[in-house]
Amino acid sequence: MSVGKSIRILRIGHRYVRDYRTLTHLCLVSRALGAEAVYLEEIDDGLLEGIREVNESWGDGFQVLKVPSWKSAVSEAKKEGRTVIHLTMYGLPVQDKVEELRRSSRLLVAVGGPKVPAEAYQLADYNIAVTSQPHSEIAALAIVLHELQSGEELKKEFGPAKLKIVPSEKGKKVEKLA
Amino acid sequence: MSVGKSIRILRIGHRYVRDYRTLTHLCLVSRALGAEAVYLEEIDDGLLEGIREVNESWGDGFQVLKVPSWKSAVSEAKKEGRTVIHLTMYGLPVQDKVEELRRSSRLLVAVGGPKVPAEAYQLADYNIAVTSQPHSEIAALAIVLHELQSGEELKKEFGPAKLKIVPSEKGKKVEKLA
Repeated sequence: MSVGKSIRILRIGHRYVRDYRTLTHLCLVSRALGAEAVYLEEIDDGLLEGIREVNESWGDGFQVLKVPSWKSAVSEAKKEGRTVIHLTMYGLPVQDKVEELRRSSRLLVAVGGPKVPAEAYQLADYNIAVTSQPHSEIAALAIVLHELQSGEELKKEFGPAKLKIVPSEKGKKVEKLA
Repeated sequence: MSVGKSIRILRIGHRYVRDYRTLTHLCLVSRALGAEAVYLEEIDDGLLEGIREVNESWGDGFQVLKVPSWKSAVSEAKKEGRTVIHLTMYGLPVQDKVEELRRSSRLLVAVGGPKVPAEAYQLADYNIAVTSQPHSEIAALAIVLHELQSGEELKKEFGPAKLKIVPSEKGKKVEKLA
């Protein structure tokens, strides 16, 4: 089942590739919550392998893609007619803009961090905040994906997989499909 | 402004304290999204200092508290009349249970991980999943806090602070209040 929107994620920020754990979480959250792909300027082999294994075990379709620069990814996205949202604690509250944002069926969500160039704020169509308090870019991304898709992303069915969880009240039930 | 619920967070899982970055994010997300406190079995001085600085700069009131064990925290919470929710990808979909969960005004949200004891599934009132796909406990916590509070947590006003962001369309505006 498609959630009906095409959402891609872009990581902006200097040397983020060294924070391997956060980057893996960024990719997994993007995948689990209905995005199609994450764009990165630098890709680590371990990261690619990790995502490939998750796709294989839990359902295919999500991509991690290398881009020459975050700016080229933003300008490509604009050419494709995507609305570009930059997540930043300095932006406008997500709850005030979400109805407007939901009108876009094609989006690029740029996830920043401490070292985002000032230009990113200018190039984005929207600078959006999930609270103006410091917390986590992973949490902010999760809430924005959830709001953009009105919660429909939680019902997404994934492609052919080896493993599938059967939701249960207590304990762990996993079906092995391959 | 109070969001009207008393929500506390508990970290369950072996040796999580070594993953300092994820633990900091867990605390900051809890704070930013309306929880009152995080309970931990082990507390690192650096973590406490980091949270103290955030409270001082951005608004006070959030606590990181040491508990003898996760089990004692769960049984204390039950004595206080809290509904205990354990977040796990094996649980029931959050969207199917959220209306029921919203009836509780006092909650303990237990955030698990790979090494959660089987007993946690039994002791929780609810085992709740944010998708049955692997992703991030931080993202799952964010979405559950957001859903439990129907998005009202995004409007939370924090206590006296040194810094306050003025949301803006482009760029960064920060008021220095002290």
